[in-house]
Amino acid sequence: MKKVGIIMGSDSDLPILEKTMATLTEYDVPFEVHVYSAHRTPEEARDFSVNARDNGFGVLICAAGMAAHLAGAVAANTTLPVIGIPCKSSVLDGMDALLSTVMMPSGIPVATVAINGGANAALLAIQILAVGDGALYEKLQAKRAEGAAKVLEKDRAVGEKYNK
Amino acid sequence: MKKVGIIMGSDSDLPILEKTMATLTEYDVPFEVHVYSAHRTPEEARDFSVNARDNGFGVLICAAGMAAHLAGAVAANTTLPVIGIPCKSSVLDGMDALLSTVMMPSGIPVATVAINGGANAALLAIQILAVGDGALYEKLQAKRAEGAAKVLEKDRAVGEKYNK
Amino acid sequence: MKKVGIIMGSDSDLPILEKTMATLTEYDVPFEVHVYSAHRTPEEARDFSVNARDNGFGVLICAAGMAAHLAGAVAANTTLPVIGIPCKSSVLDGMDALLSTVMMPSGIPVATVAINGGANAALLAIQILAVGDGALYEKLQAKRAEGAAKVLEKDRAVGEKYNK
Amino acid sequence: MKKVGIIMGSDSDLPILEKTMATLTEYDVPFEVHVYSAHRTPEEARDFSVNARDNGFGVLICAAGMAAHLAGAVAANTTLPVIGIPCKSSVLDGMDALLSTVMMPSGIPVATVAINGGANAALLAIQILAVGDGALYEKLQAKRAEGAAKVLEKDRAVGEKYNK
Amino acid sequence: MKKVGIIMGSDSDLPILEKTMATLTEYDVPFEVHVYSAHRTPEEARDFSVNARDNGFGVLICAAGMAAHLAGAVAANTTLPVIGIPCKSSVLDGMDALLSTVMMPSGIPVATVAINGGANAALLAIQILAVGDGALYEKLQAKRAEGAAKVLEKDRAVGEKYNK
Amino acid sequence: MKKVGIIMGSDSDLPILEKTMATLTEYDVPFEVHVYSAHRTPEEARDFSVNARDNGFGVLICAAGMAAHLAGAVAANTTLPVIGIPCKSSVLDGMDALLSTVMMPSGIPVATVAINGGANAALLAIQILAVGDGALYEKLQAKRAEGAAKVLEKDRAVGEKYNK
Amino acid sequence: MKKVGIIMGSDSDLPILEKTMATLTEYDVPFEVHVYSAHRTPEEARDFSVNARDNGFGVLICAAGMAAHLAGAVAANTTLPVIGIPCKSSVLDGMDALLSTVMMPSGIPVATVAINGGANAALLAIQILAVGDGALYEKLQAKRAEGAAKVLEKDRAVGEKYNK
Amino acid sequence: MKKVGIIMGSDSDLPILEKTMATLTEYDVPFEVHVYSAHRTPEEARDFSVNARDNGFGVLICAAGMAAHLAGAVAANTTLPVIGIPCKSSVLDGMDALLSTVMMPSGIPVATVAINGGANAALLAIQILAVGDGALYEKLQAKRAEGAAKVLEKDRAVGEKYNK
Repeated sequence: MKKVGIIMGSDSDLPILEKTMATLTEYDVPFEVHVYSAHRTPEEARDFSVNARDNGFGVLICAAGMAAHLAGAVAANTTLPVIGIPCKSSVLDGMDALLSTVMMPSGIPVATVAINGGANAALLAIQILAVGDGALYEKLQAKRAEGAAKVLEKDRAVGEKYNK
Repeated sequence: MKKVGIIMGSDSDLPILEKTMATLTEYDVPFEVHVYSAHRTPEEARDFSVNARDNGFGVLICAAGMAAHLAGAVAANTTLPVIGIPCKSSVLDGMDALLSTVMMPSGIPVATVAINGGANAALLAIQILAVGDGALYEKLQAKRAEGAAKVLEKDRAVGEKYNK
Repeated sequence: MKKVGIIMGSDSDLPILEKTMATLTEYDVPFEVHVYSAHRTPEEARDFSVNARDNGFGVLICAAGMAAHLAGAVAANTTLPVIGIPCKSSVLDGMDALLSTVMMPSGIPVATVAINGGANAALLAIQILAVGDGALYEKLQAKRAEGAAKVLEKDRAVGEKYNK
Repeated sequence: MKKVGIIMGSDSDLPILEKTMATLTEYDVPFEVHVYSAHRTPEEARDFSVNARDNGFGVLICAAGMAAHLAGAVAANTTLPVIGIPCKSSVLDGMDALLSTVMMPSGIPVATVAINGGANAALLAIQILAVGDGALYEKLQAKRAEGAAKVLEKDRAVGEKYNK
Repeated sequence: MKKVGIIMGSDSDLPILEKTMATLTEYDVPFEVHVYSAHRTPEEARDFSVNARDNGFGVLICAAGMAAHLAGAVAANTTLPVIGIPCKSSVLDGMDALLSTVMMPSGIPVATVAINGGANAALLAIQILAVGDGALYEKLQAKRAEGAAKVLEKDRAVGEKYNK
Repeated sequence: MKKVGIIMGSDSDLPILEKTMATLTEYDVPFEVHVYSAHRTPEEARDFSVNARDNGFGVLICAAGMAAHLAGAVAANTTLPVIGIPCKSSVLDGMDALLSTVMMPSGIPVATVAINGGANAALLAIQILAVGDGALYEKLQAKRAEGAAKVLEKDRAVGEKYNK
Repeated sequence: MKKVGIIMGSDSDLPILEKTMATLTEYDVPFEVHVYSAHRTPEEARDFSVNARDNGFGVLICAAGMAAHLAGAVAANTTLPVIGIPCKSSVLDGMDALLSTVMMPSGIPVATVAINGGANAALLAIQILAVGDGALYEKLQAKRAEGAAKVLEKDRAVGEKYNK
Repeated sequence: MKKVGIIMGSDSDLPILEKTMATLTEYDVPFEVHVYSAHRTPEEARDFSVNARDNGFGVLICAAGMAAHLAGAVAANTTLPVIGIPCKSSVLDGMDALLSTVMMPSGIPVATVAINGGANAALLAIQILAVGDGALYEKLQAKRAEGAAKVLEKDRAVGEKYNK
């Protein structure tokens, strides 16, 4: 199976990406994680991106905060699908990272998920890999059903407590 | 090849999706386009989504404005990758559609592109299909190079006019 | 008397809805509460909405955060009045939920109250039921007067402490 | 049938309220329209509100722009359901009116619709009146179906033009 | 000397107004403080405003949060200068209160100070009273000089610590 | 009578200040208008402010756009009441000017009116001068009544056209 | 004299940079202009930046819109001072470009000017070159005085027209 | 070597400027720090700015919060490059300070860094001084390489922990 590449702009983004890794692990999807900054190590970020497909990657996930250029910088150097996670930092509640990630110019898309959306970035990567992988697709469907079941369990619990 | 499904919440979003269709056509990627509203025709939107994979779709693109629920509503009914295009309407400059599309809860991702990002939604869909399609990947790489060449041509033109 | 249906997208919204339930209880208005997610259990949310009037509901209250589609998704499946409570989550201070709830397209209104406005959602539901119920109306008027009296009591307390 | 009271803060809001009146007329719901400013004619706004129920009104709709206090000022003087339409003015794209209308303190709800949401305000008022009026409810259901049919007609037209 | 009237929409705004009262006390300017809500006790807010000039008030200060209508509602009932303090509440960081207070329509101004600007509201009231009161003006000038001296003292302290 | 000083940061703000001057003329309040930029002519802005009271001014009105420092810079050099008009420029819809004008630090208030609120700035200045001027106060009350009458005239016109 | 390097992300930003070039020409400061996109021609943008100092550049000016990564991408590849001009595009009024340009992480600063601030970017570049160039400094001082004189001329014109 | 002048509007901004001073110290760049408020001590702020070049300063750094006028007020009185640090205060998350600092009118630029960007302001000042100082430039290049090495060290640490 193709691997998912995970890049964070700073290791302060690790808590968000641990959810990403946990989700990928849950689906047995192989991944490789890196700390590359678009601004502090632009060469490494570029080299990784340029060679990603040849190195067996199918999708790349990039997480960064503030003027979050990482996903865009990676997307500029590969035509693999690139998923961007805007990370909330100490000011502006993540709005800066969201706009820096999602408002990409025509020609270089970044598939942006919610601010701090570490788990959803993994799910989206898995959905992408599952386009050509029926077994993975079945797993997604099964877990989706499990997710629904959990909500309905909560529905019962809340109903028992509050409905008379 | 798997098809790309395109859904718009209202035919007022057509100008943005014409760019989507033009780009898919440029890459010879088959698509099918629909007008389904998450709010006015929820049944049709759901039925289309639930059956999309079985009907040969690989990726879905949804465009909507204001409280743009369409991409999320479609994503709730399929585990195919869903790309959301937030469309600018007459107030708030597209910020309402952006937040309604991108801030999805854990479990149901939407791959969001820029406000009015019709062409990028198509490119992202093609990148997703190209994960398992080397020929499509080569086309993406070739067109990326063409895009770069066009920028450099403009660089020359601007340089000739302004640099002395 | 018709019942008020209360739906939350996630049980993390319970603290806000406990104010809703407390207010309805204060007015002896019957209610039924559910946890249904527009995205994780779309079928259940839809079924509840489609059958709500037949099941004795007069008004529905929906609470959700982030890309808060719940109220709109419910409103798409019923013509009962639907009240939306945008809930603040960990980023963006509730602005995402507010815009996702209130900016509904023409044809499918959602009666939106303030971010985290659990008590006001209940009051609005009671006001709606009181349109055709004189006794309930009298109770609203009486409690409104009580509310005013409490403010004036505080006016006296503050005046005694600070005015010389 | 109870009447719908419509109040605008300034006659510059008329174009938005003409959609409100057109929708009410479409449903044969009686209405009465006024120009009362919360700030320039507070007495008239108050008197109208205090006496609204006695004068046969079931729901009130208030439209105002900028620091849009009208709906809140009316709601402070009646326990009838009050629907607020935030109107876009020449700056800030309606955000000022939206926040001024929807962020009401506990005790005095305003049922807020989208910025410039004239038609939806009428529909919400009709939905409220229909809680106790089966015939009106049937009309709402019928027109909802008509609305869906129109979308599907557009779906066919778009499909014929773009799907090959 | 004319009195300053201080009105808060809720006693939760007291901490901000204690700075207002402390500043007025520092200048020996008489004041009277009230808790009147534009929405919960509209009659009292109106009566106070209508009679404020006759009752010896020269300026009114109003503090409120969320959809902060208090200053505007008071200004609608008097032609005395009305100063508005937008108060930050639990969501939106005070932006709702700021826009609800400052964006008044033509004809009814509110002199708005910064979010939570309790001390500045008092200073502005004193500046207004000092237009026709030379002694008060001299006090303002003297205290302004004291304020400058305090900054320069800090300049010395910081310089001693950090400049070598 | 004390004069009103009007300063604009750029003569592009003239259309807004012409409303200010028209309103002052309507009340026979003397004024003097200047173009002084806080950034391009800081000396002149300062000298005018420092000497304003001695030169017979009672209130100062400052209009500026973008990073609108003018009102604050003037307020830093006088203890006369300073009214700030934030002016909308070609980007950001006036939000930059609003925050730059209203969010003044403790000690130096600016009485801020709505974005582009030229007429209200004049009215606020007149209200300030009227604190100690009964005749001016009577004029304000009379014109307030005229304003109300105009609204009610529109109420009649709208009622005749739309109420049946 | 060292040259100023000007890079635009797209030739649609030319109108803003023509003001930059006009200002540099006014001061006889040599410049070289390029169209390099951080996303479409990352190699060229990098090569230019890496070699800029060796090629005789003293300051770089970068203009881009939307998720404006250009200035940051250039700054990542040089330690020359980099000035960023956020350009307004068709949505969001330039706020996306502003945050993408200014919110740079620690280690890689971008000297950001106002949205569409083409002339100020040039002036800032000249100020930087003038730190070590007395003649250029004198020119800046002289033109600053000319700018002030122009404002005062407008002050006279406005005064003559409106002050009586 | 020319000195860097550092001015803060209030000593509450010291924690941010301590990073500025630490960075300058790291590069052995001399500096002088002051507490001058644009509003409370305008004369001192002006005098410092007017004489800054004559007193051996090459760059000025200004930090302020809320309606942050300090950098603009300093820039109005010198043609030295002025760097502005917008500081987050207790409301609005620094957006007010950012817009007040960066949106300067044509003619008076402020080189704005990120909200609370104390270290980057120092780096930008050093970059400016290094335009004419090869040794300082070499230091910048060396430390940039050190910064990259630190990121790569983290890359190894994260890789060892998470990649299997």
